Amino acid sequence: MTAADALTDLLAYQHETEALVGVAGRLDWDQETMMPPGAAEQRAEESAAMSGVLHARRTDPRIGDWLAASETAEMTEAQAAMLRHIRRDYDKTQKVPGKLAAEIARVTSISQGKWAAARAADDFTAFVPWLTRVVALRQEEGQALANGGDPYDALIDNYEPDMTAARLDAMFGEMRPRLRTLREKVLGQPEPQGLSGTFDETAQMAFATQLATTFGYDLTRGRLDKAVHPFSSGSGSDVRITTRTNPTDPFNCFYSTIHEVGHACYEQGIDAGYALTPLGQGVSMGVHESQSRIYENQIGRSRAFTGWMYDRMSDSFGDIGVTTPDAFYAAVNRVRKDFIRTESDELQYNLHIMLRFDLERALISGDLKPEDLESAWNERFEKDFGFAVPRASLGCLQDVHWSIGLFGYFPTYSLGNVYAGCLHQAMRAAIPDLDDHLAKGDTTPATTWLRENVQRHGGLYRPAEVIERACGAAPTAGPLMDYIEAKFIALYNIQ
Amino acid sequence: MTAADALTDLLAYQHETEALVGVAGRLDWDQETMMPPGAAEQRAEESAAMSGVLHARRTDPRIGDWLAASETAEMTEAQAAMLRHIRRDYDKTQKVPGKLAAEIARVTSISQGKWAAARAADDFTAFVPWLTRVVALRQEEGQALANGGDPYDALIDNYEPDMTAARLDAMFGEMRPRLRTLREKVLGQPEPQGLSGTFDETAQMAFATQLATTFGYDLTRGRLDKAVHPFSSGSGSDVRITTRTNPTDPFNCFYSTIHEVGHACYEQGIDAGYALTPLGQGVSMGVHESQSRIYENQIGRSRAFTGWMYDRMSDSFGDIGVTTPDAFYAAVNRVRKDFIRTESDELQYNLHIMLRFDLERALISGDLKPEDLESAWNERFEKDFGFAVPRASLGCLQDVHWSIGLFGYFPTYSLGNVYAGCLHQAMRAAIPDLDDHLAKGDTTPATTWLRENVQRHGGLYRPAEVIERACGAAPTAGPLMDYIEAKFIALYNIQ
Repeated sequence: MTAADALTDLLAYQHETEALVGVAGRLDWDQETMMPPGAAEQRAEESAAMSGVLHARRTDPRIGDWLAASETAEMTEAQAAMLRHIRRDYDKTQKVPGKLAAEIARVTSISQGKWAAARAADDFTAFVPWLTRVVALRQEEGQALANGGDPYDALIDNYEPDMTAARLDAMFGEMRPRLRTLREKVLGQPEPQGLSGTFDETAQMAFATQLATTFGYDLTRGRLDKAVHPFSSGSGSDVRITTRTNPTDPFNCFYSTIHEVGHACYEQGIDAGYALTPLGQGVSMGVHESQSRIYENQIGRSRAFTGWMYDRMSDSFGDIGVTTPDAFYAAVNRVRKDFIRTESDELQYNLHIMLRFDLERALISGDLKPEDLESAWNERFEKDFGFAVPRASLGCLQDVHWSIGLFGYFPTYSLGNVYAGCLHQAMRAAIPDLDDHLAKGDTTPATTWLRENVQRHGGLYRPAEVIERACGAAPTAGPLMDYIEAKFIALYNIQ
Repeated sequence: MTAADALTDLLAYQHETEALVGVAGRLDWDQETMMPPGAAEQRAEESAAMSGVLHARRTDPRIGDWLAASETAEMTEAQAAMLRHIRRDYDKTQKVPGKLAAEIARVTSISQGKWAAARAADDFTAFVPWLTRVVALRQEEGQALANGGDPYDALIDNYEPDMTAARLDAMFGEMRPRLRTLREKVLGQPEPQGLSGTFDETAQMAFATQLATTFGYDLTRGRLDKAVHPFSSGSGSDVRITTRTNPTDPFNCFYSTIHEVGHACYEQGIDAGYALTPLGQGVSMGVHESQSRIYENQIGRSRAFTGWMYDRMSDSFGDIGVTTPDAFYAAVNRVRKDFIRTESDELQYNLHIMLRFDLERALISGDLKPEDLESAWNERFEKDFGFAVPRASLGCLQDVHWSIGLFGYFPTYSLGNVYAGCLHQAMRAAIPDLDDHLAKGDTTPATTWLRENVQRHGGLYRPAEVIERACGAAPTAGPLMDYIEAKFIALYNIQ
């Protein structure tokens, strides 16, 4: 086998694997949107069989042989990046014993149901045995991956390559006091009025579709459906999103849609030549979240864009309870005391994440025992948010993540916000008249800049490198914090 | 490896294969119903990768080892039937060289597009090179499978195990003169009035859903969507159907729906214990078609059921252009001069099939050259139907089947009608008051009898055996012909 042949064979093999990953992803989409309720058990068998196929392909020892043999091959920058991804993934499969991987899949598929039942019953104790098992399995995986290093770092690396807990800790340490101080000031001001009116759910979906195309989502290569939870799935020329509707809260539908459109436009914006290669998906969870957040927040919740949206919503829904663009902007960005991360605002959202980051880090290190999670959560929540958690469903049982084994994932949400802050600063510098466009509902200059500077690269560069190339400087929390402070100080007339 | 272990391993392996077949089927469903238009190329890659996975599994030499080793194992009747199916399929894969199978897949995926373009341009000559290649490949496959026998018989066996061209020929030879004679008499009578009115397409879909549940289709284990072509897909607890709407022709939607419901109810009616085994699907194309046809025709187009349907349609659509149940029944069963098989009636449908059977048999034997197909078709059509075919899209280019390599498939449609005739006779004998139920829109006695006597067995028995067990006699064309003659002689007042 020549080096060139090995490279060709490896990339052809990977091409097929990526196609099968697409099939598996479509199956998950179907499960959340189209699957008849009675098909759940059969679907579990189908999904398990697909997972088995993918696992067998990813652990195929030929990958190791091809990687070794292709090292001396001449290759393009893109091919070198592809090999980097393949090697990284293959090394991970080599480090984690197959039995452990299978046990993680088995336990997390059960524990998600146990979590849902415990949350419905507000009974943290019922979830403790399952949390204990999931934490133990992820500790074991983290140790296997870390090779003597920090197991939690190894878990973070699954979602955000090159990132470490220490760097996140420093970043969050800089953000936390500024956010706490700002939060107190804002909550000391009078609360803006919210929307009221009649928001027909079919009309909400029509409006959401209009928003999606306004942000450049290409419906000839995607589709928008209703589901219990908003999500984006797929890559290349088939990237689908979902949203949900709530008859009294249209913002839930609209901002979930814009958020998922951000994820989807990232996937749709990747160089078509990378399709069905390891470069054909967003490069990390943090960079992915930077796109969804900048679409949702820095663009979608800006004064300029909400002015346009106020007119459109008034056209579509008649009396919406607020009567000026400024009041609408205040309603969109209203900060309220609440317990739930997913319903939080730009100001408080990162406090929710930091809490989870510290607690899950302590769970994986063993400093926090799973049975003590609820009390640790409640104590920390009161410290950061100033009021007590009345029950577990509003506290440590609110998120699905830990039940399905996602440890090291939460911090990528805030990292995405930090990246979005950096990108927003650079984008504003590059497009001085951005607000003039947004005020007319024209997002094209913004989405074009993001596609050109971030999205099109897919997996070509390392995550932080993507942001640094786009912004001209390594990412820091400063731009995000400056943006949040300026926005909420002005909006709430804080002296 | 003990015989018992070999049996266990083989069935576990097959279980996973069946689950993956389900995934591939869902992917095809998605392509016809949900896929964004721009995703076609990527989907072709995904489907090819899934086909590769399934091909590798089906040709895995371990299957041969397991089959040999499990021969002496103690097993249930069901397990013995499973092994029969697995051995049959594995033997076929052993006989057909992998290169030939791949070439068939490659050429038919292209030639379908060539056929669609040729049909749109009404240009048979443009399709000849592709038809020639497809016929040659299927001849080669037929020879490989036939092992010295008749290649066309071997192709029929792919869709209808145990059936031969000679037996079909004898059956069709008995039917053809009776159908021709009856057709002439019917067309000599005044043509009944058709429907007229406004048939809102959303209301058609609502009515189709009502019909589907009336026939016992379980929507908690299935769903009904719109697609260009009506079809049924899936098995076990996830069996989905599609239909289409035409604003001026609601029967197109309703009878397509009932037809697909027949297929889907067969799948849904199979013993749940056979799910994800080789017994968990309908046993042959002919038996499958017997279910769709008996739902659509002997039940759905009966005087009793159409009486109920007339009332419901008048409720849903107002003035439908006919004003009595008898006139409605006549409109449902109207016989007209036409070229198109899929729009044909119970009387003429089998003449369309027999024409295709004779021509494709001659193509595979080499007696008919592909370039002579159009003239052979037109000559035969005029003989059977009494008028000339004006252009290829109304003649030999009307069906997709040959372009995708389906040879030996067409006769299973008429075989299904023959089976439906036998089942209908036995069902009427078992349920003397069936029409009283149908007149009230109650299909339960009929669908229960079919589930009990046909559907629940899945692949447990051989195709003809299923019919014989249900009817107490080997299937013949007599009952179908007697039924058709009695129905149309009465309806058209033929002396």
